[in-house]
Amino acid sequence: MFAIDLNADLGESFGAYKMGSDEELMKYITSANIACGMHGGDPIVINNTILMAKAHKVNIGAHPSYPDLQGFGRRDMVLSELEIECFVLYQIGAVDAFCRANSVELKHTKPHGALYNAAAKDLNIALAIVNAIKKFNNNTILVGLANSKFIQAGKEVGIKVAKEVFADRAYDDSGFLVPRKVPGSVITDIDLAVNQALQIVKYKKVQTISGKIIDIQGDTICVHGDNPKAKDLLDSLFYVFKKEGITILPLSEIVNGA
Amino acid sequence: MFAIDLNADLGESFGAYKMGSDEELMKYITSANIACGMHGGDPIVINNTILMAKAHKVNIGAHPSYPDLQGFGRRDMVLSELEIECFVLYQIGAVDAFCRANSVELKHTKPHGALYNAAAKDLNIALAIVNAIKKFNNNTILVGLANSKFIQAGKEVGIKVAKEVFADRAYDDSGFLVPRKVPGSVITDIDLAVNQALQIVKYKKVQTISGKIIDIQGDTICVHGDNPKAKDLLDSLFYVFKKEGITILPLSEIVNGA
Amino acid sequence: MFAIDLNADLGESFGAYKMGSDEELMKYITSANIACGMHGGDPIVINNTILMAKAHKVNIGAHPSYPDLQGFGRRDMVLSELEIECFVLYQIGAVDAFCRANSVELKHTKPHGALYNAAAKDLNIALAIVNAIKKFNNNTILVGLANSKFIQAGKEVGIKVAKEVFADRAYDDSGFLVPRKVPGSVITDIDLAVNQALQIVKYKKVQTISGKIIDIQGDTICVHGDNPKAKDLLDSLFYVFKKEGITILPLSEIVNGA
Amino acid sequence: MFAIDLNADLGESFGAYKMGSDEELMKYITSANIACGMHGGDPIVINNTILMAKAHKVNIGAHPSYPDLQGFGRRDMVLSELEIECFVLYQIGAVDAFCRANSVELKHTKPHGALYNAAAKDLNIALAIVNAIKKFNNNTILVGLANSKFIQAGKEVGIKVAKEVFADRAYDDSGFLVPRKVPGSVITDIDLAVNQALQIVKYKKVQTISGKIIDIQGDTICVHGDNPKAKDLLDSLFYVFKKEGITILPLSEIVNGA
Repeated sequence: MFAIDLNADLGESFGAYKMGSDEELMKYITSANIACGMHGGDPIVINNTILMAKAHKVNIGAHPSYPDLQGFGRRDMVLSELEIECFVLYQIGAVDAFCRANSVELKHTKPHGALYNAAAKDLNIALAIVNAIKKFNNNTILVGLANSKFIQAGKEVGIKVAKEVFADRAYDDSGFLVPRKVPGSVITDIDLAVNQALQIVKYKKVQTISGKIIDIQGDTICVHGDNPKAKDLLDSLFYVFKKEGITILPLSEIVNGA
Repeated sequence: MFAIDLNADLGESFGAYKMGSDEELMKYITSANIACGMHGGDPIVINNTILMAKAHKVNIGAHPSYPDLQGFGRRDMVLSELEIECFVLYQIGAVDAFCRANSVELKHTKPHGALYNAAAKDLNIALAIVNAIKKFNNNTILVGLANSKFIQAGKEVGIKVAKEVFADRAYDDSGFLVPRKVPGSVITDIDLAVNQALQIVKYKKVQTISGKIIDIQGDTICVHGDNPKAKDLLDSLFYVFKKEGITILPLSEIVNGA
Repeated sequence: MFAIDLNADLGESFGAYKMGSDEELMKYITSANIACGMHGGDPIVINNTILMAKAHKVNIGAHPSYPDLQGFGRRDMVLSELEIECFVLYQIGAVDAFCRANSVELKHTKPHGALYNAAAKDLNIALAIVNAIKKFNNNTILVGLANSKFIQAGKEVGIKVAKEVFADRAYDDSGFLVPRKVPGSVITDIDLAVNQALQIVKYKKVQTISGKIIDIQGDTICVHGDNPKAKDLLDSLFYVFKKEGITILPLSEIVNGA
Repeated sequence: MFAIDLNADLGESFGAYKMGSDEELMKYITSANIACGMHGGDPIVINNTILMAKAHKVNIGAHPSYPDLQGFGRRDMVLSELEIECFVLYQIGAVDAFCRANSVELKHTKPHGALYNAAAKDLNIALAIVNAIKKFNNNTILVGLANSKFIQAGKEVGIKVAKEVFADRAYDDSGFLVPRKVPGSVITDIDLAVNQALQIVKYKKVQTISGKIIDIQGDTICVHGDNPKAKDLLDSLFYVFKKEGITILPLSEIVNGA
């Protein structure tokens, strides 16, 4: 049997500023990564987003970032490992409070933006994040890029890691994402994107930007709501996954402990 | 038997900015109110302060405030009740994450500055705070001004409330604190302050600024570290309390449920 | 001859967060109030907005607010008069730097949101703002609510004040705006709004929400881009003003010194 | 004749948080670099510091930084060149507003912390800063590390640059400062520090940490107030400079245009 989780970054509005199409995405996804107030999100937004996820029976996770609201957490910053651990712990706790208040469980943590990218390449950063997660609740899941330092860090420390893969992003031969600024890095053709997802989930293979076929394993696909084709891509994914016998399940039913 | 808790606001440093004499106060107090990052404190400071409190076997609570770092949470702000509830919940969760990571329990919540003063007078604000506390963990204690709306709000919602009293602040005839800008509002004479504490704890009475004697009940005395006489006042309090048979105990051993 | 300025609040986007339809409004208005970074706006946004205003030959002013990004400057805050003066001065200077860098002149200042409303009713707050403007450049214009404390403050200190009026907001009998939460406070019918603007500009009269006709003088009409009818209202205003011989001119050509 | 400016970073307090010994340093220095609110400083602090500098007849400059209050501007951040230019421009303008309000002139700009260090090594970052300064007022002076990219950037763009040197920091053979974490990087012996200052100012030479003698030119020495020996070092500097015929003069009398 084939199964995959669909996750999306939600709750990234801030005060009077609206961002994303959370309500629309909730209908498709099984895991919501909730912004924690440091790159987006605020206490009201967190509360609303968790209520929405609960109503849609979507699993809830924290989506911590560097403290950089003006840069939306997308700028590299050099924090010490202790700073990273403490900033991640703070943000997980903040989101978890709204889970407790609304009688739902925090299931996972997926770092955001520049912090995610830095940890994917730097084991010490990945370890700082993993330590925060483990200290908070060693039963929750880290969502991190497949083939990256996240996986190694999770194993070293002994927490569950969900391997994240992408339908609409090109991979390089080492299994990393091709940076957004490189032409061809974003797959805009829906059929190609759906096919990439299918290859990854069913055959554990992906064709890289150079044409090579490499191995890849994925537990969850990251989906976005911020482009006009998002709904079409999701509808196609659902149609093809159903036809191919791929079940969409929440992370907690896909990822098992080390 | 007479018993009282001593609480202090700690962890109010921020980044490179140092504030307070936390290490010194830890030797005297039984309950530490830890700033949560909105008027002071940051993830590193919260972590350090909780480690310090744990080492001194001091009970730990959250010290949430309005989101106003530049004003140190001392400026009045008009937030909706939902905003207050969500901002308090966010802050309690953030501090609680460090408690969990360090295997200690969050025992209480005491609002800070302008939020504390507003709630003391406005039942709806007090209720918003109490709701946040209850939703997070209805077994934790609210610390609020004796004779204020805090007490009523705690009873209405059904959580434990610790009545806070002051040794070094003058009271008015309605049992409220005389505002700081009024001459005589701060009791600088150590003997007078110690005597006021003794009257409150042992006889449940206080002499107001007008000379009248009124009833008052206290579960915890707020102490400060930021004046040169702080240590002398604390030493005198300890000496007199011992002589008079007053035991200093953490909140959780003093306050019982409704 | 009848003349009026049209002003709008612009540059309120922040980082990745987009707000408003600045490009669209620039085609209609004669004065742009640029957010300064404290309720919205950031250095990049300020720069872009000033470049856009310069390209459209629109006059540029600062739009300072309370320091409350999460509340979008719409929440009441209690700042001292010195704090208000310094926060306004800081924000004017920040926007002015981009004017200088782009070889345009800062012509006016219009406070934002809760700060605007507070100053309209409280002379001391209005004076703090006016003092900041005067100290920065006593040749620039304050934009403030007609019939409010702004006008008195400007006269007392001796700077030019432009009286702001509204086409789409109901007035009460004292010449103040009816608060938004009151039914009927916002005039959604375009013909009624255009007629109110015409009455104010041509006849210096307005019919209040109670039906009474009162005197009012206006130098500038505030227009918004954030509702679906905004463009229709502006097109109607332009059509009627042209037919009635009302010229749309920038503030600096309308307002003369005391 | 030998002349040198003494500069210090001031106005780095924030809200209730006090930092530095500004009042003490004002007695010694000729140029004050005023924090602009992004790593330290706020509108009230800026105003107070400028009033203090004016009273002491000390020249005033802006001290802009990355937007990182919690990290005190000491953490590396990756901003685009446009972002750097706009953030620096914003901060210069904010400080300049208080200069104008207090009838003093902004004379120079010295970047802070991680921004200073990044620009010293990266010409594009240095150019972004220099462009902001030039666009604001091409008659003001950039203060930047001697022998660094600052000097080259200033020449390329055509603004005046003051070469900053250090009495109490060790140099490497390429004329850069030895990083603080390297043993011996900070010269704590007052006689050695004073002698290094004398060698630089009088003979335009410095002995590096490896023992080599290299050429160096300095227009201004950076002094600090945050260590116990600060006052002794300054007293010794003054004594030796007087004996050796070295005049202490503000930047504007030392640095001439390209």
